[in-house]
Amino acid sequence: MNEKPYHVVAIGNAIVDVLAFADDTLIVAEAMKKGTMCLIDEARAEALYAKMGPSIEVSGGSAANTLAGLALLGAKTAFIGKVYKDELGKIFRHDLTALGVDFSTPSAEQGKATARCLILVTPDGQRTMNTFIGACNELYEADIDESLIAKARILYGEGYMWDQECAKAALKKAFRIAKKQGTKIAFTLSDVFCVERSRAEFLTILREDIDILFCNEAEARALFPDKDFPAILDALEDMCDIVAVTMSERGSMILAGGKRFPVAAVPVKEVVDTTGAGDLYAAGFLYGFTHGLLLPECGRLGSACAADVITHLGARAQKSLKRLIAA
Amino acid sequence: MNEKPYHVVAIGNAIVDVLAFADDTLIVAEAMKKGTMCLIDEARAEALYAKMGPSIEVSGGSAANTLAGLALLGAKTAFIGKVYKDELGKIFRHDLTALGVDFSTPSAEQGKATARCLILVTPDGQRTMNTFIGACNELYEADIDESLIAKARILYGEGYMWDQECAKAALKKAFRIAKKQGTKIAFTLSDVFCVERSRAEFLTILREDIDILFCNEAEARALFPDKDFPAILDALEDMCDIVAVTMSERGSMILAGGKRFPVAAVPVKEVVDTTGAGDLYAAGFLYGFTHGLLLPECGRLGSACAADVITHLGARAQKSLKRLIAA
Repeated sequence: MNEKPYHVVAIGNAIVDVLAFADDTLIVAEAMKKGTMCLIDEARAEALYAKMGPSIEVSGGSAANTLAGLALLGAKTAFIGKVYKDELGKIFRHDLTALGVDFSTPSAEQGKATARCLILVTPDGQRTMNTFIGACNELYEADIDESLIAKARILYGEGYMWDQECAKAALKKAFRIAKKQGTKIAFTLSDVFCVERSRAEFLTILREDIDILFCNEAEARALFPDKDFPAILDALEDMCDIVAVTMSERGSMILAGGKRFPVAAVPVKEVVDTTGAGDLYAAGFLYGFTHGLLLPECGRLGSACAADVITHLGARAQKSLKRLIAA
Repeated sequence: MNEKPYHVVAIGNAIVDVLAFADDTLIVAEAMKKGTMCLIDEARAEALYAKMGPSIEVSGGSAANTLAGLALLGAKTAFIGKVYKDELGKIFRHDLTALGVDFSTPSAEQGKATARCLILVTPDGQRTMNTFIGACNELYEADIDESLIAKARILYGEGYMWDQECAKAALKKAFRIAKKQGTKIAFTLSDVFCVERSRAEFLTILREDIDILFCNEAEARALFPDKDFPAILDALEDMCDIVAVTMSERGSMILAGGKRFPVAAVPVKEVVDTTGAGDLYAAGFLYGFTHGLLLPECGRLGSACAADVITHLGARAQKSLKRLIAA
């Protein structure tokens, strides 16, 4: 029955990550909230970059990271997002298309530079993100290709886009198309501050649009600040068909059809950098889901992909993930 | 007696590395010589980049890598080299100055883009390099600051610069200043093809200018194609006060004052990427040499720094190297 050729089409912010190891003192001195994402302007990006240690540049962006993981697992995917016509934009496009991800959204010819995310990785492996959103806000409804979404089994979107009006409108258009075309909608809550900024709207789309929800425990709590955790899980499973709540080293919990499936985390020798852990969990989960695996198996593949990405710097897997499918 | 404030001032190509894992089939299909450096033009760089997998960008450049290592060990250093006023140039400058390396050579305002090196890392950990030299050839004699070199205990230069007439002339000017100012001159032969292209001139500067020579076994053999290895070592020690010949997993051999000191390699669990191994060996060696260590201790610190850099992607150490001094 399922003849749609794309396993997942994703819409997201097109970002190049600039990663540096940092002491906790810098996090404190710059008044950052460890483990979260903060939006910054270009002047702040310049000032913070000057205070960061030597860095490496790796393509990022939450939904794009998920697609990169899906592509490495062997899924057919496409990305919709906006870079500027600059060096970082070329790098972002190269790194996605080199994996076989279709990416035909044209680069912005005017406006701001390609987005970058300055990421400080502390000795505990935690990542603290500072995003200059740049060209991401040049994604318009006209960039949403109805025929592409119609060809996808799953449309995947990120909560981060709710911080930009144009990009949000584009994602909402994509949701409307998906519902019309019989494409399931998956969504990530992205970040606890992101949830706080858009709580009411997130609750609405969870009720009305989202079939498969990804979030971590803190994001779930931010969505329902007055409920305790068991009540939060009850509320989430009333809203979406499938919910996957990640809980770092405590694994994840999948809620579906009135059942709950706890999934163990995959232990790693040394956590180097947690950047992309949630994105890669979603990649493994959605690969399993679009390839006929049972939900606990989807969760286990998600855990395995997340474990792989936290052993090195950056949110993109460095080698093939296909070995994880067999395991 | 030694009041010069800089331990090492280096002159080198200012390059950002673009690193991707690759199968041997790509090396063969593109007719590359594994383990060597090939100079390419901008069109070839574009074409090859399109064939490479997802990449990460890390500042590189042989002498700059050595300085970055020296700075992480705690040495006072300065760099002379040329980037263009573009994004990659900003990245290169940031990554060096963030370590405390002084770098005041102005960026080129015209000419070609900042140099990049497309590096394919094969499953055996070997790196094969393709360098678009770009703005590096805009380094002129006027960029050589006599007072800076006068303040350095060691001037370090790279053989790679012999491929560009302007940069070579600048380095030769620096050699003249160093000899006048009582600054010792250290030099790396860089690459076997580089030696083949400039054999006669390299032999001349080894005899006339170089106090401390770094090379690997293949480069030493390329310098004297008609001699066997024992005779090559004899010839090298006649030419330079100190010679350090690296031999990959077989360690290194230091020749000085008629004596030979074999140094063991430091074993690593998994060789991920050998990019920068020789550069970091030189960093450890020169740190030891400028901090009163005996020559075998200099070699051991070199081996330890080289072992550190080959366990991850890229030629720059990701964390402090100071722990290696105590060990």
